[in-house]
Amino acid sequence: MDADILIRGCIILPMNGTGPIMDGAIAIKGRSIVYVGRASGAEGIHAERLIDAKGMAAMPGLVNTHTHIPMTIFRGIAEDRTLESWLKETIWPLEAKLTEDDVYYGALLGCLEMIKSGTTCFADMYFFEDAVARAVAESGLRAVLSWGIIEAGVAEVGKVTLQNSVEFSERWNGFDEGRIHARLAPHSVYTCSPELLSEVRSQANRLGVGIHIHLSESRWEVEQTTRKYGVTPVEHLEKLGFLGPDVLAAHCVHLTDGDMRILARRGVKVAYNPTCNAKLGMGIARVWEMHRMGVDVGIATDGPASNNTLDMLECTKIASILQKVRYGDPTVMPVEAALRMATLGGAKVLGLERQIGTLEPGKRADLILIDLRKPHLTPNHNTAANILYSARGSDVDTVIVDGKILMEGRQVKTLSEEEVVEKARDTAHKIVQE
Amino acid sequence: MDADILIRGCIILPMNGTGPIMDGAIAIKGRSIVYVGRASGAEGIHAERLIDAKGMAAMPGLVNTHTHIPMTIFRGIAEDRTLESWLKETIWPLEAKLTEDDVYYGALLGCLEMIKSGTTCFADMYFFEDAVARAVAESGLRAVLSWGIIEAGVAEVGKVTLQNSVEFSERWNGFDEGRIHARLAPHSVYTCSPELLSEVRSQANRLGVGIHIHLSESRWEVEQTTRKYGVTPVEHLEKLGFLGPDVLAAHCVHLTDGDMRILARRGVKVAYNPTCNAKLGMGIARVWEMHRMGVDVGIATDGPASNNTLDMLECTKIASILQKVRYGDPTVMPVEAALRMATLGGAKVLGLERQIGTLEPGKRADLILIDLRKPHLTPNHNTAANILYSARGSDVDTVIVDGKILMEGRQVKTLSEEEVVEKARDTAHKIVQE
Repeated sequence: MDADILIRGCIILPMNGTGPIMDGAIAIKGRSIVYVGRASGAEGIHAERLIDAKGMAAMPGLVNTHTHIPMTIFRGIAEDRTLESWLKETIWPLEAKLTEDDVYYGALLGCLEMIKSGTTCFADMYFFEDAVARAVAESGLRAVLSWGIIEAGVAEVGKVTLQNSVEFSERWNGFDEGRIHARLAPHSVYTCSPELLSEVRSQANRLGVGIHIHLSESRWEVEQTTRKYGVTPVEHLEKLGFLGPDVLAAHCVHLTDGDMRILARRGVKVAYNPTCNAKLGMGIARVWEMHRMGVDVGIATDGPASNNTLDMLECTKIASILQKVRYGDPTVMPVEAALRMATLGGAKVLGLERQIGTLEPGKRADLILIDLRKPHLTPNHNTAANILYSARGSDVDTVIVDGKILMEGRQVKTLSEEEVVEKARDTAHKIVQE
Repeated sequence: MDADILIRGCIILPMNGTGPIMDGAIAIKGRSIVYVGRASGAEGIHAERLIDAKGMAAMPGLVNTHTHIPMTIFRGIAEDRTLESWLKETIWPLEAKLTEDDVYYGALLGCLEMIKSGTTCFADMYFFEDAVARAVAESGLRAVLSWGIIEAGVAEVGKVTLQNSVEFSERWNGFDEGRIHARLAPHSVYTCSPELLSEVRSQANRLGVGIHIHLSESRWEVEQTTRKYGVTPVEHLEKLGFLGPDVLAAHCVHLTDGDMRILARRGVKVAYNPTCNAKLGMGIARVWEMHRMGVDVGIATDGPASNNTLDMLECTKIASILQKVRYGDPTVMPVEAALRMATLGGAKVLGLERQIGTLEPGKRADLILIDLRKPHLTPNHNTAANILYSARGSDVDTVIVDGKILMEGRQVKTLSEEEVVEKARDTAHKIVQE
């Protein structure tokens, strides 16, 4: 068999329910995986490019299911504040000043940070989203992107942003054989009217794209919605006929048991944002219960202004220990389940489980190599546990997306690290000083 | 002025209540800091060794106030289990097989990992603690070490381990001008009888050393103690006349309001172990309340078999976000307070605040340089926030303890990284296979 890339000598965690493969090999042809197994079984494979991965672990790339990557430029700008003060006093006034170029440089920085920490696919929601799409196209990452729709009481603004979101989807959905997918992204039930939400639902059906929305993040949101509509945010969306398996709901921190049953029944997908929900004092989502009810849940960092990184390994560790302390039970969300949530779970949540999320022949070649030869990853009694609880983004050595090497030996191939960092730094300082 | 080392061009976070110093300089002579201030004010300082720290932040070394570093060799060995099953089914049977050499190689790995992640001082409790002390002596780290005292119903075992703990203190307390301090370490109120605890108190007074104990870690411990003695673990120690400012109590997860008042009144110091308490489903200690009552609190990783790293930057981030979610309030444990807890707070907790914990002339030169020129640390709106929420151990470039450079450009000077990793790996595999 011929292949473009052959990776040999690593421990493989395929994340498809089978155990680790010792001394494994992975062959890639074009955009796809053509072999996963023991190195001894790959001897007949001739590849243009050999990667010696001895001492490393190979696993599917990490999938970040909810973020706003241009917000890298606001990292650390407003700490230890309530969500309301953070948004109203700092973030919104600064966002009002952003140009499309600013968003682009912030997005490039986010892409660079994600590549350097092992994320291969992410779901984003922001404005000037074309700038994010351009950054993704250049960086080689896979993404599900949305232009945010927000009304905040002004119907005209809702119309314009919906139009932006629709046109963005038309421009970018399916780009580069599906490396970019688009969705419509109404911000939330408290910033979009029922009429606007219904219109979003119809447009999504017409376009055949999914929906990405913030849902039940804060106690305030639930109280506000209950006061206005007499029902919870989830019930409100249910009554509008809005919910379905193509809806990605970010946060879901404050849910009733009934809300969880509705999400399960409708096949709604959930993005669990453990770090920012804790950091903003929002709470800990009842993820393990949802998981057991059959709801697909992925892990998410949220925007880097409220986390403050895009490091999915850090985030998945925090995701896991927060569930354990939430339920007072260390057996909850065990190692395999946590890593699966960060890979295959994320793929399912984005509707991409046929393309990515596991290492199997036929799937797109989105994978990472983690260098295990580090003091904090020694000894290696349990590779999966070492990756979940001890590894950090900085241990990721190699990143491949869609069969293309984006990073090798920690050298990013698709972006100039120095240039991206400098441009983002200049942009950030300009915004603050204006 | 003459100095041995002059560090120039960094942003300095002195952690003494004053703000960051831009374009700063730090001069070191012998074991001590002799200058901290603007680089422009250091022009008259002649140093043998210049460190160009442009693009870096300098701060006091991180202080890990409770761990069991030889347990590095058990990293990842028993996951997703209850504390009881983890201890009884895996850890204790394996520990019974450990030789002094095994403990030594595990301790060396722990020292290596700490240097590589910016910890300069730590408090340890284990057995064969001389092996830990030898590793610390070689590595150049600062430490407060204790041989654990455990009785578990057998008075003779209590006597022997107390004797070990006392003799260890006599051998090592004050080593290398105070680079190593010793303490007596009764394991807990549920594994030591009241008579043994009283004897430990007398011996500590006689030797002039502090005490290190696990306290109110689990609900089970509190219930057990209440059943046996009719009082909480804290009240039990109070009745024994055991508590005082030289007592370091690790965990303190399950405290009553009365317990907290006793700790505050007696000046007891607390080691907050956020990650392992969450991971084992124990809970989140009420640290912010204790802090506001005037209790000195430090951050701790606990042993690497239940965390699973010794990375204090990771741990301090988790410490902070857990307090915020515990109280549902993002203003709790703000950036400066969290970093202070990991440095000066830790120093106070170990009774070393006159020697270390801040960057000030006259203090011992225990400090780290963090390389800020990374995508995930860009932009730098707030250096302290970037360090707390975005930096990881792998961003630490240089580590100095007692005026000696232990790591520079991530190259460890005092230990052979390759050899330590290999020895620890072999030891770990031997233990499991025996």
